[in-house]
Amino acid sequence: MSSNSLSDIKTPPACTADFCLIPLGTPTASVSKEVAEVQRLLKRSGLNYSMHSAGTTVEGSWDEVMKVIGQCHAMLHANGVVRIQSDIRVGTRTDKKQSFDDKVAAVRKILDADEKAVEGP
Amino acid sequence: MSSNSLSDIKTPPACTADFCLIPLGTPTASVSKEVAEVQRLLKRSGLNYSMHSAGTTVEGSWDEVMKVIGQCHAMLHANGVVRIQSDIRVGTRTDKKQSFDDKVAAVRKILDADEKAVEGP
Amino acid sequence: MSSNSLSDIKTPPACTADFCLIPLGTPTASVSKEVAEVQRLLKRSGLNYSMHSAGTTVEGSWDEVMKVIGQCHAMLHANGVVRIQSDIRVGTRTDKKQSFDDKVAAVRKILDADEKAVEGP
Amino acid sequence: MSSNSLSDIKTPPACTADFCLIPLGTPTASVSKEVAEVQRLLKRSGLNYSMHSAGTTVEGSWDEVMKVIGQCHAMLHANGVVRIQSDIRVGTRTDKKQSFDDKVAAVRKILDADEKAVEGP
Repeated sequence: MSSNSLSDIKTPPACTADFCLIPLGTPTASVSKEVAEVQRLLKRSGLNYSMHSAGTTVEGSWDEVMKVIGQCHAMLHANGVVRIQSDIRVGTRTDKKQSFDDKVAAVRKILDADEKAVEGP
Repeated sequence: MSSNSLSDIKTPPACTADFCLIPLGTPTASVSKEVAEVQRLLKRSGLNYSMHSAGTTVEGSWDEVMKVIGQCHAMLHANGVVRIQSDIRVGTRTDKKQSFDDKVAAVRKILDADEKAVEGP
Repeated sequence: MSSNSLSDIKTPPACTADFCLIPLGTPTASVSKEVAEVQRLLKRSGLNYSMHSAGTTVEGSWDEVMKVIGQCHAMLHANGVVRIQSDIRVGTRTDKKQSFDDKVAAVRKILDADEKAVEGP
Repeated sequence: MSSNSLSDIKTPPACTADFCLIPLGTPTASVSKEVAEVQRLLKRSGLNYSMHSAGTTVEGSWDEVMKVIGQCHAMLHANGVVRIQSDIRVGTRTDKKQSFDDKVAAVRKILDADEKAVEGP
Protein backbone atom coordinates (compact mmCIF):
# COMPACT_ATOMS: atom_id res chain seq x y z
CA MET A 1 0.00 0.00 0.00
CA SER A 2 3.08 2.19 -0.05
CA SER A 3 1.94 4.01 -3.18
CA ASN A 4 -1.15 5.38 -1.44
CA SER A 5 -1.33 8.36 0.82
CA LEU A 6 -1.59 7.55 4.51
CA SER A 7 -4.66 9.74 4.77
CA ASP A 8 -6.44 7.37 2.37
CA ILE A 9 -6.42 4.59 4.96
CA LYS A 10 -9.69 4.72 6.87
CA THR A 11 -9.88 3.42 10.46
CA PRO A 12 -12.10 0.32 10.98
CA PRO A 13 -15.89 0.87 10.73
CA ALA A 14 -16.46 -1.34 13.80
CA CYS A 15 -14.52 -2.41 16.87
CA THR A 16 -14.97 -3.72 20.38
CA ALA A 17 -12.79 -2.12 23.04
CA ASP A 18 -12.46 -3.10 26.67
CA PHE A 19 -10.75 -0.47 28.78
CA CYS A 20 -9.58 -0.20 32.35
CA LEU A 21 -8.85 3.38 33.38
CA ILE A 22 -6.60 4.16 36.34
CA PRO A 23 -6.17 7.63 37.90
CA LEU A 24 -2.70 8.25 39.40
CA GLY A 25 -1.69 10.49 42.27
CA THR A 26 -5.21 10.65 43.72
CA PRO A 27 -5.61 10.96 47.51
CA THR A 28 -7.22 7.52 47.94
CA ALA A 29 -6.73 4.10 46.41
CA SER A 30 -10.42 3.90 45.54
CA VAL A 31 -11.43 4.44 41.93
CA SER A 32 -15.21 3.91 42.23
CA LYS A 33 -15.99 7.60 41.89
CA GLU A 34 -13.94 7.93 38.69
CA VAL A 35 -15.37 4.73 37.23
CA ALA A 36 -18.90 5.99 37.94
CA GLU A 37 -18.13 9.23 36.08
CA VAL A 38 -16.87 7.18 33.14
CA GLN A 39 -20.14 5.20 33.09
CA ARG A 40 -22.16 8.43 33.07
CA LEU A 41 -20.16 9.76 30.13
CA LEU A 42 -20.55 6.48 28.22
CA LYS A 43 -24.30 6.61 28.79
CA ARG A 44 -24.44 10.06 27.23
CA SER A 45 -22.41 8.84 24.21
CA GLY A 46 -25.21 6.59 22.99
CA LEU A 47 -22.74 3.76 22.29
CA ASN A 48 -23.42 0.20 23.46
CA TYR A 49 -21.33 -0.52 26.58
CA SER A 50 -21.11 -2.90 29.51
CA MET A 51 -19.23 -2.55 32.80
CA HIS A 52 -17.57 -5.50 34.55
CA SER A 53 -15.23 -5.66 37.52
CA ALA A 54 -12.05 -5.28 35.47
CA GLY A 55 -13.11 -2.67 32.94
CA THR A 56 -15.81 -1.51 30.57
CA THR A 57 -16.49 -2.88 27.10
CA VAL A 58 -17.74 -0.49 24.43
CA GLU A 59 -18.72 -1.02 20.79
CA GLY A 60 -18.86 1.32 17.82
CA SER A 61 -16.73 2.59 14.99
CA TRP A 62 -12.98 2.85 15.78
CA ASP A 63 -13.19 6.65 15.78
CA GLU A 64 -16.28 6.84 18.00
CA VAL A 65 -14.92 4.38 20.54
CA MET A 66 -11.46 5.93 20.78
CA LYS A 67 -12.95 9.41 20.97
CA VAL A 68 -15.18 8.53 23.91
CA ILE A 69 -12.30 6.90 25.82
CA GLY A 70 -10.23 10.04 25.21
CA GLN A 71 -13.14 12.14 26.46
CA CYS A 72 -13.18 10.04 29.66
CA HIS A 73 -9.51 10.99 30.19
CA ALA A 74 -10.23 14.66 29.43
CA MET A 75 -13.25 14.78 31.75
CA LEU A 76 -11.28 13.32 34.67
CA HIS A 77 -8.40 15.72 33.99
CA ALA A 78 -10.94 18.60 34.07
CA ASN A 79 -12.07 17.23 37.44
CA GLY A 80 -8.52 17.50 38.80
CA VAL A 81 -6.91 14.12 38.13
CA VAL A 82 -3.41 14.99 36.87
CA ARG A 83 -2.43 11.63 35.40
CA ILE A 84 -4.46 8.77 33.92
CA GLN A 85 -3.39 5.44 32.49
CA SER A 86 -5.75 3.16 30.56
CA ASP A 87 -5.31 -0.34 29.31
CA ILE A 88 -7.38 -0.90 26.17
CA ARG A 89 -7.95 -4.28 24.54
CA VAL A 90 -9.39 -3.55 21.12
CA GLY A 91 -10.44 -6.01 18.45
CA THR A 92 -11.51 -5.61 14.85
CA ARG A 93 -12.57 -8.26 12.35
CA THR A 94 -13.69 -8.40 8.75
CA ASP A 95 -15.04 -11.97 8.64
CA LYS A 96 -18.24 -11.25 10.53
CA LYS A 97 -20.13 -8.80 12.67
CA GLN A 98 -20.05 -9.96 16.26
CA SER A 99 -21.32 -7.98 19.22
CA PHE A 100 -19.77 -8.52 22.64
CA ASP A 101 -22.91 -10.37 23.70
CA ASP A 102 -22.49 -12.74 20.74
CA LYS A 103 -18.97 -13.60 21.89
CA VAL A 104 -20.06 -14.73 25.33
CA ALA A 105 -23.01 -16.62 23.80
CA ALA A 106 -20.68 -18.55 21.46
CA VAL A 107 -18.62 -19.81 24.42
CA ARG A 108 -21.67 -20.56 26.58
CA LYS A 109 -23.15 -22.66 23.77
CA ILE A 110 -20.04 -24.87 23.78
CA LEU A 111 -20.07 -25.14 27.58
CA ASP A 112 -23.81 -25.95 27.67
CA ALA A 113 -23.15 -28.89 25.37
CA ASP A 114 -20.74 -30.23 28.04
CA GLU A 115 -23.44 -30.21 30.65
CA LYS A 116 -25.90 -31.97 28.43
CA ALA A 117 -23.29 -34.63 27.70
CA VAL A 118 -22.74 -35.15 31.44
CA GLU A 119 -26.45 -35.29 32.21
CA GLY A 120 -26.94 -37.89 29.52
CA PRO A 121 -30.11 -38.76 27.66
CA MET B 1 14.65 -4.15 51.69
CA SER B 2 18.05 -4.60 50.09
CA SER B 3 19.50 -6.36 53.11
CA ASN B 4 16.98 -9.20 52.82
CA SER B 5 17.21 -12.17 50.57
CA LEU B 6 14.93 -12.02 47.53
CA SER B 7 13.48 -15.41 48.47
CA ASP B 8 12.15 -13.86 51.69
CA ILE B 9 9.69 -11.71 49.74
CA LYS B 10 6.40 -13.56 49.56
CA THR B 11 4.00 -12.95 46.66
CA PRO B 12 0.65 -11.33 47.62
CA PRO B 13 -1.86 -13.51 49.52
CA ALA B 14 -4.73 -12.21 47.37
CA CYS B 15 -5.18 -10.75 43.91
CA THR B 16 -7.75 -10.23 41.19
CA ALA B 17 -6.60 -10.97 37.65
CA ASP B 18 -8.49 -10.40 34.44
CA PHE B 19 -6.97 -12.17 31.47
CA CYS B 20 -7.61 -12.29 27.76
CA LEU B 21 -5.89 -15.23 26.07
CA ILE B 22 -5.19 -15.25 22.33
CA PRO B 23 -4.00 -18.28 20.34
CA LEU B 24 -1.79 -17.40 17.34
CA GLY B 25 -1.33 -19.27 14.07
CA THR B 26 -4.58 -21.21 14.42
CA PRO B 27 -6.50 -22.14 11.25
CA THR B 28 -9.49 -19.91 12.04
CA ALA B 29 -9.99 -16.48 13.58
CA SER B 30 -12.49 -17.90 16.07
CA VAL B 31 -11.30 -18.39 19.65
CA SER B 32 -14.55 -19.70 21.21
CA LYS B 33 -13.28 -23.28 21.42
CA GLU B 34 -10.09 -22.24 23.22
CA VAL B 35 -11.98 -19.90 25.56
CA ALA B 36 -14.40 -22.72 26.43
CA GLU B 37 -11.45 -24.99 27.30
CA VAL B 38 -10.09 -22.25 29.56
CA GLN B 39 -13.45 -22.02 31.35
CA ARG B 40 -13.47 -25.79 31.92
CA LEU B 41 -9.98 -25.66 33.40
CA LEU B 42 -10.91 -22.74 35.67
CA LYS B 43 -13.96 -24.66 36.90
CA ARG B 44 -11.73 -27.55 37.91
CA SER B 45 -9.36 -25.17 39.75
CA GLY B 46 -11.95 -24.33 42.40
CA LEU B 47 -11.07 -20.62 42.20
CA ASN B 48 -13.77 -17.96 41.93
CA TYR B 49 -13.95 -16.74 38.33
CA SER B 50 -16.25 -14.90 35.93
CA MET B 51 -16.20 -14.74 32.13
CA HIS B 52 -17.13 -11.61 30.19
CA SER B 53 -16.81 -10.75 26.51
CA ALA B 54 -13.27 -9.36 26.78
CA GLY B 55 -11.69 -11.84 29.18
CA THR B 56 -12.10 -13.81 32.37
CA THR B 57 -11.63 -12.49 35.90
CA VAL B 58 -10.24 -14.86 38.53
CA GLU B 59 -9.53 -14.38 42.24
CA GLY B 60 -7.18 -16.15 44.63
CA SER B 61 -3.66 -15.92 45.97
CA TRP B 62 -1.10 -14.53 43.49
CA ASP B 63 0.51 -17.97 43.14
CA GLU B 64 -2.77 -19.83 42.61
CA VAL B 65 -4.06 -17.34 40.03
CA MET B 66 -0.82 -17.14 38.03
CA LYS B 67 -0.43 -20.92 38.13
CA VAL B 68 -3.89 -21.53 36.70
CA ILE B 69 -3.36 -19.00 33.89
CA GLY B 70 -0.05 -20.73 33.09
CA GLN B 71 -1.87 -24.07 33.08
CA CYS B 72 -4.34 -22.63 30.54
CA HIS B 73 -1.39 -21.83 28.26
CA ALA B 74 0.11 -25.30 28.81
CA MET B 75 -3.19 -27.09 28.16
CA LEU B 76 -3.73 -25.26 24.86
CA HIS B 77 -0.13 -25.95 23.82
CA ALA B 78 -0.77 -29.64 24.59
CA ASN B 79 -3.82 -29.39 22.31
CA GLY B 80 -1.63 -28.15 19.46
CA VAL B 81 -1.66 -24.36 19.71
CA VAL B 82 1.95 -23.34 19.07
CA ARG B 83 1.83 -19.76 20.32
CA ILE B 84 -0.32 -18.01 22.91
CA GLN B 85 -0.39 -14.41 24.07
CA SER B 86 -2.33 -13.27 27.15
CA ASP B 87 -3.03 -9.83 28.46
CA ILE B 88 -3.40 -9.92 32.25
CA ARG B 89 -4.64 -7.01 34.37
CA VAL B 90 -3.80 -7.91 37.93
CA GLY B 91 -4.50 -5.90 41.06
CA THR B 92 -3.44 -6.31 44.68
CA ARG B 93 -4.30 -4.15 47.67
CA THR B 94 -3.56 -4.13 51.36
CA ASP B 95 -6.15 -1.59 52.52
CA LYS B 96 -9.14 -3.90 52.28
CA LYS B 97 -10.42 -7.19 50.99
CA GLN B 98 -12.56 -6.59 47.93
CA SER B 99 -13.99 -9.28 45.67
CA PHE B 100 -14.65 -8.51 42.03
CA ASP B 101 -18.37 -8.45 42.77
CA ASP B 102 -17.77 -5.82 45.47
CA LYS B 103 -16.04 -3.57 42.93
CA VAL B 104 -18.99 -3.51 40.55
CA ALA B 105 -21.38 -3.03 43.50
CA ALA B 106 -19.42 0.04 44.69
CA VAL B 107 -19.82 1.73 41.30
CA ARG B 108 -23.47 0.71 40.92
CA LYS B 109 -24.26 2.21 44.32
CA ILE B 110 -22.93 5.60 43.14
CA LEU B 111 -24.85 5.35 39.85
CA ASP B 112 -28.08 4.32 41.60
CA ALA B 113 -27.89 7.50 43.65
CA ASP B 114 -27.91 9.46 40.35
CA GLU B 115 -31.16 7.87 39.28
CA LYS B 116 -32.83 8.56 42.61
CA ALA B 117 -31.72 12.18 42.34
CA VAL B 118 -33.26 12.43 38.87
CA GLU B 119 -36.50 10.77 39.88
CA GLY B 120 -36.86 13.17 42.78
CA PRO B 121 -38.93 12.75 45.92
CA MET C 1 -19.81 18.64 33.64
CA SER C 2 -23.26 17.15 33.16
CA SER C 3 -24.71 20.43 31.92
CA ASN C 4 -22.33 20.52 28.96
CA SER C 5 -22.77 18.76 25.68
CA LEU C 6 -20.62 15.66 25.24
CA SER C 7 -19.28 17.05 21.98
CA ASP C 8 -17.74 19.93 23.95
CA ILE C 9 -15.29 17.61 25.64
CA LYS C 10 -12.07 17.59 23.64
CA THR C 11 -9.79 14.53 23.70
CA PRO C 12 -6.34 15.08 25.30
CA PRO C 13 -3.84 17.20 23.31
CA ALA C 14 -1.00 14.77 24.14
CA CYS C 15 -0.67 11.11 25.03
CA THR C 16 1.79 8.26 25.00
CA ALA C 17 0.44 4.92 23.79
CA ASP C 18 2.21 1.58 23.77
CA PHE C 19 0.49 -1.01 21.63
CA CYS C 20 0.96 -4.68 20.90
CA LEU C 21 -0.96 -5.81 17.82
CA ILE C 22 -1.82 -9.48 17.26
CA PRO C 23 -3.23 -10.91 14.01
CA LEU C 24 -5.54 -13.92 14.51
CA GLY C 25 -6.22 -16.84 12.20
CA THR C 26 -3.03 -16.32 10.19
CA PRO C 27 -1.30 -19.38 8.69
CA THR C 28 1.81 -19.07 10.87
CA ALA C 29 2.51 -18.12 14.47
CA SER C 30 5.05 -15.52 13.35
CA VAL C 31 4.03 -11.88 13.46
CA SER C 32 7.29 -10.26 12.27
CA LYS C 33 5.89 -9.47 8.83
CA GLU C 34 2.84 -7.70 10.28
CA VAL C 35 4.92 -5.83 12.87
CA ALA C 36 7.26 -4.63 10.11
CA GLU C 37 4.27 -3.31 8.13
CA VAL C 38 3.12 -1.46 11.25
CA GLN C 39 6.56 0.15 11.59
CA ARG C 40 6.46 1.29 7.97
CA LEU C 41 3.06 2.87 8.47
CA LEU C 42 4.20 4.62 11.67
CA LYS C 43 7.22 6.01 9.82
CA ARG C 44 4.93 7.55 7.22
CA SER C 45 2.76 9.09 9.97
CA GLY C 46 5.50 11.47 11.08
CA LEU C 47 4.75 10.74 14.75
CA ASN C 48 7.53 9.95 17.23
CA TYR C 49 7.59 6.18 17.86
CA SER C 50 9.85 3.46 19.20
CA MET C 51 9.63 -0.33 18.77
CA HIS C 52 10.60 -2.77 21.52
CA SER C 53 10.14 -6.52 21.81
CA ALA C 54 6.68 -6.32 23.40
CA GLY C 55 5.12 -3.51 21.39
CA THR C 56 5.58 -0.07 19.91
CA THR C 57 5.33 3.23 21.77
CA VAL C 58 3.97 6.24 19.92
CA GLU C 59 3.47 9.85 20.98
CA GLY C 60 1.14 12.58 19.72
CA SER C 61 -2.30 14.01 20.30
CA TRP C 62 -4.92 11.45 21.41
CA ASP C 63 -6.67 11.70 18.04
CA GLU C 64 -3.49 11.34 15.96
CA VAL C 65 -2.23 8.37 17.96
CA MET C 66 -5.53 6.48 17.99
CA LYS C 67 -6.07 7.19 14.31
CA VAL C 68 -2.70 5.73 13.33
CA ILE C 69 -3.26 2.57 15.42
CA GLY C 70 -6.67 2.19 13.74
CA GLN C 71 -4.99 2.64 10.36
CA CYS C 72 -2.57 -0.19 11.27
CA HIS C 73 -5.59 -2.45 11.83
CA ALA C 74 -7.22 -1.31 8.58
CA MET C 75 -4.01 -1.79 6.56
CA LEU C 76 -3.55 -5.36 7.82
CA HIS C 77 -7.22 -6.14 7.15
CA ALA C 78 -6.70 -4.83 3.60
CA ASN C 79 -3.76 -7.23 3.35
CA GLY C 80 -6.01 -10.17 4.22
CA VAL C 81 -5.82 -10.51 8.02
CA VAL C 82 -9.43 -11.14 9.09
CA ARG C 83 -9.11 -10.48 12.82
CA ILE C 84 -6.76 -8.29 14.84
CA GLN C 85 -6.51 -7.70 18.58
CA SER C 86 -4.38 -4.93 20.09
CA ASP C 87 -3.49 -4.20 23.65
CA ILE C 88 -2.95 -0.45 24.13
CA ARG C 89 -1.51 1.12 27.27
CA VAL C 90 -2.21 4.82 26.98
CA GLY C 91 -1.30 7.56 29.41
CA THR C 92 -2.19 11.25 29.61
CA ARG C 93 -1.11 13.85 32.15
CA THR C 94 -1.70 17.51 32.79
CA ASP C 95 1.05 18.15 35.36
CA LYS C 96 3.93 18.17 32.88
CA LYS C 97 5.02 17.35 29.38
CA GLN C 98 7.04 14.14 29.38
CA SER C 99 8.26 12.27 26.33
CA PHE C 100 8.79 8.53 26.51
CA ASP C 101 12.54 9.11 26.52
CA ASP C 102 12.15 11.37 29.56
CA LYS C 103 10.40 8.59 31.47
CA VAL C 104 13.23 6.13 31.02
CA ALA C 105 15.76 8.85 31.86
CA ALA C 106 13.99 9.64 35.15
CA VAL C 107 14.30 6.01 36.28
CA ARG C 108 17.88 5.65 35.06
CA LYS C 109 18.88 8.74 37.03
CA ILE C 110 17.64 7.10 40.25
CA LEU C 111 19.40 3.83 39.41
CA ASP C 112 22.66 5.58 38.53
CA ALA C 113 22.67 7.15 41.98
CA ASP C 114 22.63 3.58 43.41
CA GLU C 115 25.75 2.65 41.55
CA LYS C 116 27.59 5.76 42.66
CA ALA C 117 26.62 4.99 46.26
CA VAL C 118 28.00 1.46 45.90
CA GLU C 119 31.22 2.60 44.30
CA GLY C 120 31.82 5.03 47.13
CA PRO C 121 34.13 8.04 47.17
CA MET D 1 -7.35 -33.72 29.11
CA SER D 2 -10.38 -33.99 31.40
CA SER D 3 -9.31 -37.38 32.69
CA ASN D 4 -6.10 -35.98 34.16
CA SER D 5 -5.72 -34.23 37.47
CA LEU D 6 -5.33 -30.47 37.21
CA SER D 7 -2.16 -30.67 39.27
CA ASP D 8 -0.58 -32.75 36.48
CA ILE D 9 -0.59 -29.77 34.13
CA LYS D 10 2.75 -28.00 34.39
CA THR D 11 3.05 -24.29 33.65
CA PRO D 12 5.16 -23.38 30.57
CA PRO D 13 8.96 -23.85 30.88
CA ALA D 14 9.58 -20.50 29.16
CA CYS D 15 7.74 -17.24 28.67
CA THR D 16 8.30 -13.57 27.89
CA ALA D 17 6.30 -11.13 29.99
CA ASP D 18 6.10 -7.38 29.60
CA PHE D 19 4.60 -5.64 32.59
CA CYS D 20 3.61 -2.10 33.46
CA LEU D 21 3.05 -1.62 37.18
CA ILE D 22 0.98 1.28 38.53
CA PRO D 23 0.75 2.29 42.20
CA LEU D 24 -2.63 3.80 43.21
CA GLY D 25 -3.41 6.32 45.91
CA THR D 26 0.18 7.58 46.13
CA PRO D 27 0.77 11.26 47.00
CA THR D 28 2.26 12.16 43.62
CA ALA D 29 1.56 11.21 40.01
CA SER D 30 5.21 10.24 39.51
CA VAL D 31 6.06 6.55 39.43
CA SER D 32 9.82 6.77 38.77
CA LYS D 33 10.74 5.83 42.35
CA GLU D 34 8.57 2.71 42.25
CA VAL D 35 9.79 1.71 38.80
CA ALA D 36 13.40 2.08 40.00
CA GLU D 37 12.67 -0.22 42.95
CA VAL D 38 11.20 -2.77 40.53
CA GLN D 39 14.38 -2.63 38.43
CA ARG D 40 16.52 -3.24 41.51
CA LEU D 41 14.44 -6.27 42.46
CA LEU D 42 14.63 -7.67 38.93
CA LYS D 43 18.41 -7.26 38.96
CA ARG D 44 18.60 -9.35 42.12
CA SER D 45 16.39 -12.05 40.54
CA GLY D 46 19.04 -13.02 38.00
CA LEU D 47 16.44 -13.16 35.22
CA ASN D 48 17.02 -11.49 31.85
CA TYR D 49 15.05 -8.23 31.72
CA SER D 50 14.87 -4.94 29.83
CA MET D 51 13.16 -1.67 30.77
CA HIS D 52 11.48 0.57 28.22
CA SER D 53 9.27 3.63 28.60
CA ALA D 54 6.01 1.68 28.81
CA GLY D 55 7.06 -1.27 30.94
CA THR D 56 9.68 -3.91 31.62
CA THR D 57 10.15 -7.14 29.69
CA VAL D 58 11.38 -10.20 31.60
CA GLU D 59 12.17 -13.74 30.45
CA GLY D 60 12.26 -17.05 32.30
CA SER D 61 10.05 -19.96 33.21
CA TRP D 62 6.37 -19.06 33.76
CA ASP D 63 6.71 -19.68 37.51
CA GLU D 64 9.91 -17.63 37.89
CA VAL D 65 8.57 -14.68 35.92
CA MET D 66 5.18 -14.55 37.65
CA LYS D 67 6.83 -14.97 41.04
CA VAL D 68 9.15 -12.02 40.53
CA ILE D 69 6.29 -9.77 39.34
CA GLY D 70 4.33 -10.78 42.45
CA GLN D 71 7.38 -9.98 44.56
CA CYS D 72 7.47 -6.50 43.00
CA HIS D 73 3.88 -5.98 44.16
CA ALA D 74 4.70 -7.34 47.65
CA MET D 75 7.82 -5.18 47.99
CA LEU D 76 5.94 -1.99 47.10
CA HIS D 77 3.12 -2.93 49.49
CA ALA D 78 5.77 -3.39 52.21
CA ASN D 79 7.00 0.11 51.34
CA GLY D 80 3.54 1.54 51.98
CA VAL D 81 1.77 1.47 48.61
CA VAL D 82 -1.76 0.23 49.42
CA ARG D 83 -2.93 -0.66 45.93
CA ILE D 84 -1.09 -1.75 42.79
CA GLN D 85 -2.35 -2.60 39.33
CA SER D 86 -0.17 -4.25 36.68
CA ASP D 87 -0.81 -4.91 33.05
CA ILE D 88 1.10 -8.01 31.92
CA ARG D 89 1.46 -9.11 28.30
CA VAL D 90 2.78 -12.65 28.44
CA GLY D 91 3.60 -14.95 25.55
CA THR D 92 4.53 -18.62 25.33
CA ARG D 93 5.35 -20.70 22.28
CA THR D 94 6.32 -24.28 21.54
CA ASP D 95 7.50 -23.89 17.94
CA LYS D 96 10.81 -22.26 18.77
CA LYS D 97 12.89 -20.62 21.45
CA GLN D 98 12.95 -16.87 20.88
CA SER D 99 14.42 -14.31 23.22
CA PHE D 100 13.02 -10.79 23.29
CA ASP D 101 16.11 -9.57 21.46
CA ASP D 102 15.45 -12.11 18.69
CA LYS D 103 11.96 -10.70 18.19
CA VAL D 104 13.17 -7.18 17.55
CA ALA D 105 15.96 -8.50 15.32
CA ALA D 106 13.44 -10.41 13.16
CA VAL D 107 11.48 -7.22 12.47
CA ARG D 108 14.60 -5.10 11.92
CA LYS D 109 15.87 -7.60 9.36
CA ILE D 110 12.68 -7.12 7.31
CA LEU D 111 12.89 -3.33 7.61
CA ASP D 112 16.56 -3.27 6.68
CA ALA D 113 15.71 -5.04 3.43
CA ASP D 114 13.35 -2.11 2.64
CA GLU D 115 16.16 0.38 2.95
CA LYS D 116 18.48 -1.64 0.73
CA ALA D 117 15.73 -1.85 -1.89
CA VAL D 118 15.31 1.93 -1.78
CA GLU D 119 19.04 2.61 -1.98
CA GLY D 120 19.32 0.35 -4.98
CA PRO D 121 22.43 -1.30 -6.39
